[in-house]
Amino acid sequence: MKRTLGVCYYPEHWPEDQWAEDAAGMVAAGLSWVRIGEFAWARMEAVPGTLTWDWLDRAIDVLGNAGLKIILGTPTATPPRWMLDKYPDMLAADAQGNPRKFGSRRHYDFSHMGYRDECRRIARLMGERYGKNPHIAAWQIDNEYDCHDTTISYSDVARRGFQDWLAQTYQSTDALNRAWGNVFWSMDYDTFDQIDLPNLTVTEPNHPHQLAFRRFSSDQVVAFNKVQADELRQHTDAPLIHNYMGRITSFDHWKVGADLDIASWDSYPIGFLSDRLEGTAEEKQKFLRQGHPDMQAFHHDLYRAVGKGRLWVMEQQPGPVNWAPYNPAPLPGMARLWAWEAFAHGAETVCYFRWRQAPFAQEQMHAGLLRPDRAPAPALAEARQVADEFAQLPDVGTAQAQAALIFDYESAWAWDVQPQGADFEMFRLAFAAYRALRRCGLNVDILPPDTADLSAYKLVLAPGIMTLSDPLRAALAAFKGTALIGPRTDTKTQELEIPVPLGPQLPEVDISVALTESLPPSEQITLQGSGQFVHWFEHLEGNAKVRLATQSGHPAIMGGDHLRYLAGWPDEATFDRIIRDLCAAQGIVTHYLPEGLRIRDTDTHRFVFNYAPEPQDWQGTTIPAAGVHWAVLT
Amino acid sequence: MKRTLGVCYYPEHWPEDQWAEDAAGMVAAGLSWVRIGEFAWARMEAVPGTLTWDWLDRAIDVLGNAGLKIILGTPTATPPRWMLDKYPDMLAADAQGNPRKFGSRRHYDFSHMGYRDECRRIARLMGERYGKNPHIAAWQIDNEYDCHDTTISYSDVARRGFQDWLAQTYQSTDALNRAWGNVFWSMDYDTFDQIDLPNLTVTEPNHPHQLAFRRFSSDQVVAFNKVQADELRQHTDAPLIHNYMGRITSFDHWKVGADLDIASWDSYPIGFLSDRLEGTAEEKQKFLRQGHPDMQAFHHDLYRAVGKGRLWVMEQQPGPVNWAPYNPAPLPGMARLWAWEAFAHGAETVCYFRWRQAPFAQEQMHAGLLRPDRAPAPALAEARQVADEFAQLPDVGTAQAQAALIFDYESAWAWDVQPQGADFEMFRLAFAAYRALRRCGLNVDILPPDTADLSAYKLVLAPGIMTLSDPLRAALAAFKGTALIGPRTDTKTQELEIPVPLGPQLPEVDISVALTESLPPSEQITLQGSGQFVHWFEHLEGNAKVRLATQSGHPAIMGGDHLRYLAGWPDEATFDRIIRDLCAAQGIVTHYLPEGLRIRDTDTHRFVFNYAPEPQDWQGTTIPAAGVHWAVLT
Amino acid sequence: MKRTLGVCYYPEHWPEDQWAEDAAGMVAAGLSWVRIGEFAWARMEAVPGTLTWDWLDRAIDVLGNAGLKIILGTPTATPPRWMLDKYPDMLAADAQGNPRKFGSRRHYDFSHMGYRDECRRIARLMGERYGKNPHIAAWQIDNEYDCHDTTISYSDVARRGFQDWLAQTYQSTDALNRAWGNVFWSMDYDTFDQIDLPNLTVTEPNHPHQLAFRRFSSDQVVAFNKVQADELRQHTDAPLIHNYMGRITSFDHWKVGADLDIASWDSYPIGFLSDRLEGTAEEKQKFLRQGHPDMQAFHHDLYRAVGKGRLWVMEQQPGPVNWAPYNPAPLPGMARLWAWEAFAHGAETVCYFRWRQAPFAQEQMHAGLLRPDRAPAPALAEARQVADEFAQLPDVGTAQAQAALIFDYESAWAWDVQPQGADFEMFRLAFAAYRALRRCGLNVDILPPDTADLSAYKLVLAPGIMTLSDPLRAALAAFKGTALIGPRTDTKTQELEIPVPLGPQLPEVDISVALTESLPPSEQITLQGSGQFVHWFEHLEGNAKVRLATQSGHPAIMGGDHLRYLAGWPDEATFDRIIRDLCAAQGIVTHYLPEGLRIRDTDTHRFVFNYAPEPQDWQGTTIPAAGVHWAVLT
Ligand SMILES: [Zn+2]
Ligand SMILES: [Zn+2]
Ligand SMILES: [Zn+2]
Repeated sequence: MKRTLGVCYYPEHWPEDQWAEDAAGMVAAGLSWVRIGEFAWARMEAVPGTLTWDWLDRAIDVLGNAGLKIILGTPTATPPRWMLDKYPDMLAADAQGNPRKFGSRRHYDFSHMGYRDECRRIARLMGERYGKNPHIAAWQIDNEYDCHDTTISYSDVARRGFQDWLAQTYQSTDALNRAWGNVFWSMDYDTFDQIDLPNLTVTEPNHPHQLAFRRFSSDQVVAFNKVQADELRQHTDAPLIHNYMGRITSFDHWKVGADLDIASWDSYPIGFLSDRLEGTAEEKQKFLRQGHPDMQAFHHDLYRAVGKGRLWVMEQQPGPVNWAPYNPAPLPGMARLWAWEAFAHGAETVCYFRWRQAPFAQEQMHAGLLRPDRAPAPALAEARQVADEFAQLPDVGTAQAQAALIFDYESAWAWDVQPQGADFEMFRLAFAAYRALRRCGLNVDILPPDTADLSAYKLVLAPGIMTLSDPLRAALAAFKGTALIGPRTDTKTQELEIPVPLGPQLPEVDISVALTESLPPSEQITLQGSGQFVHWFEHLEGNAKVRLATQSGHPAIMGGDHLRYLAGWPDEATFDRIIRDLCAAQGIVTHYLPEGLRIRDTDTHRFVFNYAPEPQDWQGTTIPAAGVHWAVLT
Repeated sequence: MKRTLGVCYYPEHWPEDQWAEDAAGMVAAGLSWVRIGEFAWARMEAVPGTLTWDWLDRAIDVLGNAGLKIILGTPTATPPRWMLDKYPDMLAADAQGNPRKFGSRRHYDFSHMGYRDECRRIARLMGERYGKNPHIAAWQIDNEYDCHDTTISYSDVARRGFQDWLAQTYQSTDALNRAWGNVFWSMDYDTFDQIDLPNLTVTEPNHPHQLAFRRFSSDQVVAFNKVQADELRQHTDAPLIHNYMGRITSFDHWKVGADLDIASWDSYPIGFLSDRLEGTAEEKQKFLRQGHPDMQAFHHDLYRAVGKGRLWVMEQQPGPVNWAPYNPAPLPGMARLWAWEAFAHGAETVCYFRWRQAPFAQEQMHAGLLRPDRAPAPALAEARQVADEFAQLPDVGTAQAQAALIFDYESAWAWDVQPQGADFEMFRLAFAAYRALRRCGLNVDILPPDTADLSAYKLVLAPGIMTLSDPLRAALAAFKGTALIGPRTDTKTQELEIPVPLGPQLPEVDISVALTESLPPSEQITLQGSGQFVHWFEHLEGNAKVRLATQSGHPAIMGGDHLRYLAGWPDEATFDRIIRDLCAAQGIVTHYLPEGLRIRDTDTHRFVFNYAPEPQDWQGTTIPAAGVHWAVLT
Repeated sequence: MKRTLGVCYYPEHWPEDQWAEDAAGMVAAGLSWVRIGEFAWARMEAVPGTLTWDWLDRAIDVLGNAGLKIILGTPTATPPRWMLDKYPDMLAADAQGNPRKFGSRRHYDFSHMGYRDECRRIARLMGERYGKNPHIAAWQIDNEYDCHDTTISYSDVARRGFQDWLAQTYQSTDALNRAWGNVFWSMDYDTFDQIDLPNLTVTEPNHPHQLAFRRFSSDQVVAFNKVQADELRQHTDAPLIHNYMGRITSFDHWKVGADLDIASWDSYPIGFLSDRLEGTAEEKQKFLRQGHPDMQAFHHDLYRAVGKGRLWVMEQQPGPVNWAPYNPAPLPGMARLWAWEAFAHGAETVCYFRWRQAPFAQEQMHAGLLRPDRAPAPALAEARQVADEFAQLPDVGTAQAQAALIFDYESAWAWDVQPQGADFEMFRLAFAAYRALRRCGLNVDILPPDTADLSAYKLVLAPGIMTLSDPLRAALAAFKGTALIGPRTDTKTQELEIPVPLGPQLPEVDISVALTESLPPSEQITLQGSGQFVHWFEHLEGNAKVRLATQSGHPAIMGGDHLRYLAGWPDEATFDRIIRDLCAAQGIVTHYLPEGLRIRDTDTHRFVFNYAPEPQDWQGTTIPAAGVHWAVLT
């Protein structure tokens, strides 16, 4: 498959006589794809039941005839105002129980069945009209699930849906009371309709109560998406896609991805550094105009797996955005670097968001490839450069990684519910492990928690997996490389209880977690030799061999040749040392990368990316700030 | 006109047999004015419809016969409890939709028509009874509009009022949808009653939606005030006044001021330093007991213009207050300094708040000129000293300034709605400009955004004016001095969109803002030579001459001899240098003032104020901490 | 009386066949007491009116027959779900008016009369069944009043109850209006049913309004407790106990304690250091695994007095807990140290919480003496060691202290309502005084505000007592030692007004507070010689002798030989110096203790406790980290 570029476009935002010029401009910029339609419900159906397709027909014609392939979006993230008259209870509610009102977007409750039917209807109508249209080469369903924290709703509709879900899941309140340990504080229920949503309680609600609500909420996203996917598949053979976001763990992307053909995501490196990554202002300053050097890679690797190997970037930041606390411009070159990095991680297509900056409404300060006055914005030339470079590197591809990281959304909910220490959070832990692998120069595959075969890998990390699934436990038993699991892995049952006997339950390795400590930032656990654990430390017991110990003699890593358990959260230098030692034992080559430099291999080339704001040296080559370097793999 | 002092007094708080002694004490302290009545509705009308004026008649007699002139306040900031029985929906609502309950003050919604009628009624009754009373020499309407964030209400009453306001403003929802760009996220409305208040939306509501609500909310304050002003004018020839607060931008003071005769304000230098100015605790420590050296001056200059030349201080802090996070006592001398500073800026009257500290209720820890036990508090002697000093400097006056600063409330709302960077706020930007002018020793006039004639000035600053008004644009075109506008000036339409062609649209100067960056505190844009921009930086284009450039070669100031655009937010030293350079070119004398020293000229004298906690030298004279120095202008 | 140990146990959490082994294990661990029952209402009465006692009969038999004495808890902190069907309005409401929902615990409004009747009923039923049971040697009523901020409720039930309470307290709204100074802002009421709860007002509600609501709220706790106490006394002669918490000032413990026989409390030193004590992370780091060296002692001394001399620890932290921001493990030895410290302060019994860590529900990460898998947790051996050591020190006892500290809950409410400076809080001030006494090595008695006899003491501190009670004022007049009162003592009336003449009103000492300043952390008031006041400074007047002055010449301490007033809040070193000077004058021996070392005398022994994480020297003896040392008093 060939690498391609694209762009997001909103014909409904512009006078029709401008469309042809825009389409020609896109082609001239080297773009192949254009995404349209995903916020245009009010233009498709201004009056309930009266569909207005002519403008969209013409837009598709103009764009398609210019040579562009179209990704058509279902507009279900922005139902028109009249939908509220039909379903006044369709609004989601916040944790205080207040309805989240009309006036922006995503103002629907995923669990509202009436609205789900409306989405099926509009998907059907679009599928019927455009499913076989030769210009429509892909479909996007809805837009950015959970954006603005929309997975979880505390509405009445959600409460009734949750009660039904519980009844189906547990069959009897007796079973539920036992499963949740409701005896603890006389929290037993007699009927399912007594069970409220877990908000506004006096102190924290029971953990399995919360976890069940998180599972229910994720299931609603999966079901909402599936309704449209099932409908569209009746009418089209084009691939179905959703555009995920960064650091969203509120729903199970593995399950949504199972119903789609391609996983795409919306990559805003500078915004994400600012608004959703740990780190002091001082730590972030170095990457202020580039983004965190591992954040994009992590999501590329994650969503490539969610997409069963097929990855797109649906929205690529081209300049300053409007929504982060501060919005500086990217370093010149980054709009190119980000695209090439996506391709190196296996992306087929990178679409910039958006063609022309809208001079109006909420995102008017969000840059595009063009300025509001049609003049080129800085990213346009960088996109053109990428398109030109395709001649040298046309083909999508990615190398088999030697290292894998298991990532599980249910565990993220479990630790949200029961962090035990203020700094314990699933993404943060998994990302710490991922970054260590990347700093050692490794390609990484991210795998789902029900992975049944690890034989392609030499090194597997599985931090923070609350319960090992049966297939994964079996795969670990059969594993010939080295798996390093923990901290906190397999220390809970599926109902978020402590198993007795104590976890983890590991094949042929006798280890259990006897005591757990969470640590404030002022406290560390010093390791023998050097290094330290931060945030978290588990006291391990068992007959397994101690591979690394703390200064005070507690096990830090225990286990056999193929399966080991990590008792704490290593700081960066310690994590690097642990990874390097494991790689050395497995014969995996590691690298010492200058700050901000990252490498990634495809099946044919090695790519080197410089996220640093100054030139860096790579094996004799000086790579400028925001520079991309590649070489054929030998 | 002669300079005078006054005080706030609450006869209803004290036994009647104490009034005469209090009145005599005021006269003995050198006070000429006494403000009364503004919280006494429950004493005037304990039972609806039954008016009890006798106590007020006697209080006015006692005070007036002692030789005091009376400012009589309408009591509409504190409606009695029975008003709620009549209008249960008159309470304002907070952003969560909760009613803001009875039990303190200002518990009314400005848009409630029933309550507005009640205010008209009480104003009429007071006007009828006291409008011609020779002791009543001025009227205050209500008290401190917006105090406790009361301009904006999210009540049902406000929602219906807003819908009416929108219908009158836009005439059709089609026009509104177009004006707001509602096509963006299918946010179009079919009827005006579909349009909700812009709170509790999923993500930010459309910017023009928010701006319209801010305009509506400000208009309610203007209308509420005008109802009383119109009524009182039927009955009295005494001047009408409102007492504004510090750093309040939620309503358009220019419009309220247009309906009144004098602008007064309530000056709490120590409280304001603590609770509403930027700065770390360390930065504020030096002025802990004096207040910020430019805060009072800014508001004197602003409200002198709002009052069309007539300025009062209606409440002057005399000692520790009760409402700031910390409440230290003023440095000895500050109660005198603050009064003289007000006079130097053109104030006719300074009233201390309050005569005697109340030993009860919410403000019992708020100092007065007397202690609760009638003993003199420290400020009493300082007030007496000011009164004695009037002999030397009896006459109100202020010099024509050479420098002007444009200040616009609509722009404040625009940037509240669309800050784009967390540190961008209108008052903060305007105050940064004002402080630079003051540090250079200049008198400053603050002017409204529709100023049509700048010919009296040599230097004009207009930072952050969202849209230049037609008169101001014309005045800039005709200007013979140097105007420095920007950042962000004329970069938006009246509907808070980006104009195409891009702004600013300047007479005979070709400049446009091509790209905008907001910057975290860790990031600066270095200028050539020296200096830097912080918070904000705009990439400018156009044929206009580059007057100053950044290290990386972008324009920092562009423009002609008379009109220039400033591309960023200069830090303090940089702003000083820019101002000094412009002054030098215009032949304006500037000064290098020691820290905390400020100067201000009237038409006859130069005043020097030392806000520093240690003595400072001024041209050979040592001015003690909290010292005031004056000399005849030659 | 003999010192004893105990443990908390939940037979309803475990299979019945495990009970006997658990009971045997407790006895083997040296424990004498077991607390049961306090969360088991749903097991006692799963269906309204159908009581199920058989399991509890058997549990009591098994535990009692093993030789354990039982503390039986009334389960009123966890009403079953069906109670809500009976009383839907029994839920407390938060400050936003939202009901605090079912799903955890303590979800009841103390003022709900229907629920109070249900509590009387279950107490009666339990009393009837177990009041004479020989195994039941003590009763606990409810559990941890105010835990999760449950004293204050803004429900409709509370509003109506408050209105009745006001009507009974003030008899007429005229009296109330006068008492509260409602004239201030026209806040007068005509009927009691107009008076709302003091939440959601526009700005702060009137202080006496708030204080009345705090008194009402505290009274509800007292009444709620008394209903059960009165009922149980009909049926049992065993002592009645409640388990208080740390740093809870929302209800008057003196009044609850008056209705009970023993005061117990739940001591979580590591959790409390983390979640409810001032101090930076750096300051807390040294005591991260030990707790603050004075926090436990303060509460032992306070609750010993609340218990009229009888003190227990009902829950003693044994290992990491689940509820603090970070939850590290205690330093080895601390579970022993904390117990011995309690005994040294007069505790009769220390019960660890809990026997076995529950693997399920909210507290699954809360350690016990056993792990979830029945293996011993580290604290078990430490408890056993304490039990063994009883042989050397069997008897409960505590020495008469020479120093006393007055502690008043009403004052805590007063300063919550009217802090005047952000750092002024009653516990914080009292604890600062207490810590200074402890750092000097003194035994301290904490006394109630109506103490009528101080003759047993040489040194009395009474900081922040809003109004001196008549008995205390008389006791101070008769006092032969030195009392140091202030800051803020006797500066308010019972209605939280400033008295005229100004307070304090001291016997034979002429001092009054003329002016009050609160200070930000950046500001101090330097004293002559050395030392400084922080947070707070009062300007004193009067003829009393100045004992200490500030650098600028204001009095810092004034008064006679027996009664002095402290004008500010001394920092730690200054407070130490002041205490040492007073002790020297009174012939009280003081000590210079190494950091973390504390001493406490019983009537027979001196105990030395090392809270430091390293060994400390005490008069030639090296005491290890977490070490306890004792010697016979000679
Ligand atoms: Zn997006
Ligand atoms: Zn005021
Ligand atoms: Zn507890």
